[in-house]
Amino acid sequence: MSLAVTGAVHAGQTIGLRAEAGVIVELGPDVQPRPEDERLDGAGALLVSPLINGHTHAAMTLFRGYGDDLPLMRWLEEKIWPIERRLDPEDVYWGTRLACLEMVRSGTVRFWDMYWHPEAAARAVRDAGLRATVAAPLIDVDSNPEAMREAALRSLDELAEIDERVHAGLAPHAIYTVSEPSLRWIAETAAEKGVPVQIHLSETEPEVTDCVSARGERPAHYLDRVGLLTPHTVLAHGVWLDREELQLIAARGAVIVTNPVANLKLAVGRVFPYLEARAAGIQVGLGTDGPGSNNSLDLFADMKVFALMQKHEARDSAAINAEETWEIATGRRAPLLGAAPGLEVGQPADFLLLRAGAPELSFGELPAALVYAASGAVVQSTVVAGQVLMRDGEIEGAEEVLARALERARRLGLAAPIVPASTPPSAGASR
Amino acid sequence: MSLAVTGAVHAGQTIGLRAEAGVIVELGPDVQPRPEDERLDGAGALLVSPLINGHTHAAMTLFRGYGDDLPLMRWLEEKIWPIERRLDPEDVYWGTRLACLEMVRSGTVRFWDMYWHPEAAARAVRDAGLRATVAAPLIDVDSNPEAMREAALRSLDELAEIDERVHAGLAPHAIYTVSEPSLRWIAETAAEKGVPVQIHLSETEPEVTDCVSARGERPAHYLDRVGLLTPHTVLAHGVWLDREELQLIAARGAVIVTNPVANLKLAVGRVFPYLEARAAGIQVGLGTDGPGSNNSLDLFADMKVFALMQKHEARDSAAINAEETWEIATGRRAPLLGAAPGLEVGQPADFLLLRAGAPELSFGELPAALVYAASGAVVQSTVVAGQVLMRDGEIEGAEEVLARALERARRLGLAAPIVPASTPPSAGASR
Repeated sequence: MSLAVTGAVHAGQTIGLRAEAGVIVELGPDVQPRPEDERLDGAGALLVSPLINGHTHAAMTLFRGYGDDLPLMRWLEEKIWPIERRLDPEDVYWGTRLACLEMVRSGTVRFWDMYWHPEAAARAVRDAGLRATVAAPLIDVDSNPEAMREAALRSLDELAEIDERVHAGLAPHAIYTVSEPSLRWIAETAAEKGVPVQIHLSETEPEVTDCVSARGERPAHYLDRVGLLTPHTVLAHGVWLDREELQLIAARGAVIVTNPVANLKLAVGRVFPYLEARAAGIQVGLGTDGPGSNNSLDLFADMKVFALMQKHEARDSAAINAEETWEIATGRRAPLLGAAPGLEVGQPADFLLLRAGAPELSFGELPAALVYAASGAVVQSTVVAGQVLMRDGEIEGAEEVLARALERARRLGLAAPIVPASTPPSAGASR
Repeated sequence: MSLAVTGAVHAGQTIGLRAEAGVIVELGPDVQPRPEDERLDGAGALLVSPLINGHTHAAMTLFRGYGDDLPLMRWLEEKIWPIERRLDPEDVYWGTRLACLEMVRSGTVRFWDMYWHPEAAARAVRDAGLRATVAAPLIDVDSNPEAMREAALRSLDELAEIDERVHAGLAPHAIYTVSEPSLRWIAETAAEKGVPVQIHLSETEPEVTDCVSARGERPAHYLDRVGLLTPHTVLAHGVWLDREELQLIAARGAVIVTNPVANLKLAVGRVFPYLEARAAGIQVGLGTDGPGSNNSLDLFADMKVFALMQKHEARDSAAINAEETWEIATGRRAPLLGAAPGLEVGQPADFLLLRAGAPELSFGELPAALVYAASGAVVQSTVVAGQVLMRDGEIEGAEEVLARALERARRLGLAAPIVPASTPPSAGASR
């Protein structure tokens, strides 16, 4: 399978691109399509690297707008947890398919997922043509640690066989929901199996104060002591980390994924100390968190909020610039997240074409246009491994995905969908 | 001229709407189009009230992405002001036309504009079919107060004749750029002519400290003393107002328009104290501020940031809910801003159709979907005074508007546009 893109704009030049077997084989002004190539007309479109969502719970698309604006614990206890107990793999499959559709549409090609029934999520990723690292949240504080471990191992085996673009991980939910012996077991198992670890860390202040009073040490130090602070660990949030913890994380080479929109929406009370993390040399990525607590999967919106919050906190409009923000959102500052190193011959053919005729992209400098002016609606075409997942705003099968996801939401007895049940999904589903 | 909308969804019902002479004449499940009606198919789309942008400098679309990420004063002194000195009415016309296009596309139907050559902005608003209150920024601290007053009066006369949907205002730039005698003259003239006033107030901390040290009183008290705190005054920003000032503003019936994205981007160091303003009973609206300091005109994005910031500041995810946020963004909490009171027979036929097939709008409660999940890309059709300005994503003349705005930007010698000069604007211009 080969693909040829013609007439796109990259670094101020009009260029073409050819991909074979998922890899870029030609890139430049003189690329000529071959007869066997699938064609993608890039006329006037901007060719850019795609986005990486470093932390989400994708299938929670089904829970979106359900019990919003409640205090966090009431939202979880009264709304989310009772329904999650009734989730089955088909719910997760279609919820994740819908998330994939929204990610493709807004330019995200790879994501890190932590959710129930990860094998169903993995099938959804495969069928949508995206890339992901998926893992079930591991929790043993109110259940049987042995059962948790067995399930984790079974899940790793199942996930290994689904698709080469879907990677398995281990995801201890948090230090307050997994026992110390199980955290150590996860560290050993991850090392042995060669899989990455993702964990929520220091999202809220009580997590820190509870850890300090229980163990006399802060969360990052505890995580290090149980062997989980490694170059293969993704720490989601890190809002309440202090300077010493940031130094430790930098020294260990772990990645922090910040989720600015979810942190604000859940009112965790502090902003991820990115400038300190940068000064310490930590690798940082960007995530939306689950669509239940964001409620969007459009990383264009979230990269803007990320940059805005850092400027605001620093009280300095120059504290972070658009170029740096774009690098973070495209995963360039945290190789573990799995972005291709760049648009180059020999690299995976993962890229976006953006509507250069969009007013948001037509003025000034490109990074500023991308970060401050654009939304995901500027994405015209999305390509992963040389496969065109969205072509000029159209995603094959989009209507079915939405219809099936709505069916699953109705099955779960979620609040009546906005659209009367008799109304067919309109043609807007793909955009 | 009459218009019939059929098959739209409103308050959970499938309904139709008819408009004649710019006003809603029928609304309900049994509306039948007449032969003479222009038709707008609303099949499966959500019918909602449109958005009001309470503060912007529309023509600054041309300056977008130019010198971003510089500290505020360097951005103004080195980038913006030198170019503004060379702006002519055609620049403002096409910059404003482009802003109107982006507003129509993302669901805004009325805006408050403060910018140079307001008669050119007014022509642009008329030609785009929108509604606006326009005014030149009045500044006399480094020029001749008499000349400023004459220009202001001339502008009021010119603006009065352009279009019934375009209203004139008076816009003293700020208390630190207009002398006390001129502020008093503006207050008297506004009362005499029956026009509203818009002014930047308490955007930055130095404005407050300078005012206190020069006059022994805080900005809102000073504004009241010169006669400018009235039910016909729109105060942009209000970030640094204290509780006593908020009480005074409430007592006088003035409106505050908050611009959360611009405040964060320019790092003014504080968040508009909305919860206190609400407690005081102040009328509040939402603005983007100029696209040079935002850099988007999509109020869907900004209403989300507004709600997020209030939750964050209050450290309470329930501090403000989606319904209240939507009311603010649609101008329902500040009648002076000019929103129609609601979608009802006898009211102006200003409304949006949203793609109900958009995944963002397909789950949960409608206000949460609109505020937290949607972006302006969910807007399918925009109608003002019964005139269809965007039909299923298409805006007539969109390509010409973008091309002419790009020409003006090139004339001004702005940073080389992203798109090579030889590339024609693509079909993406309308979306």
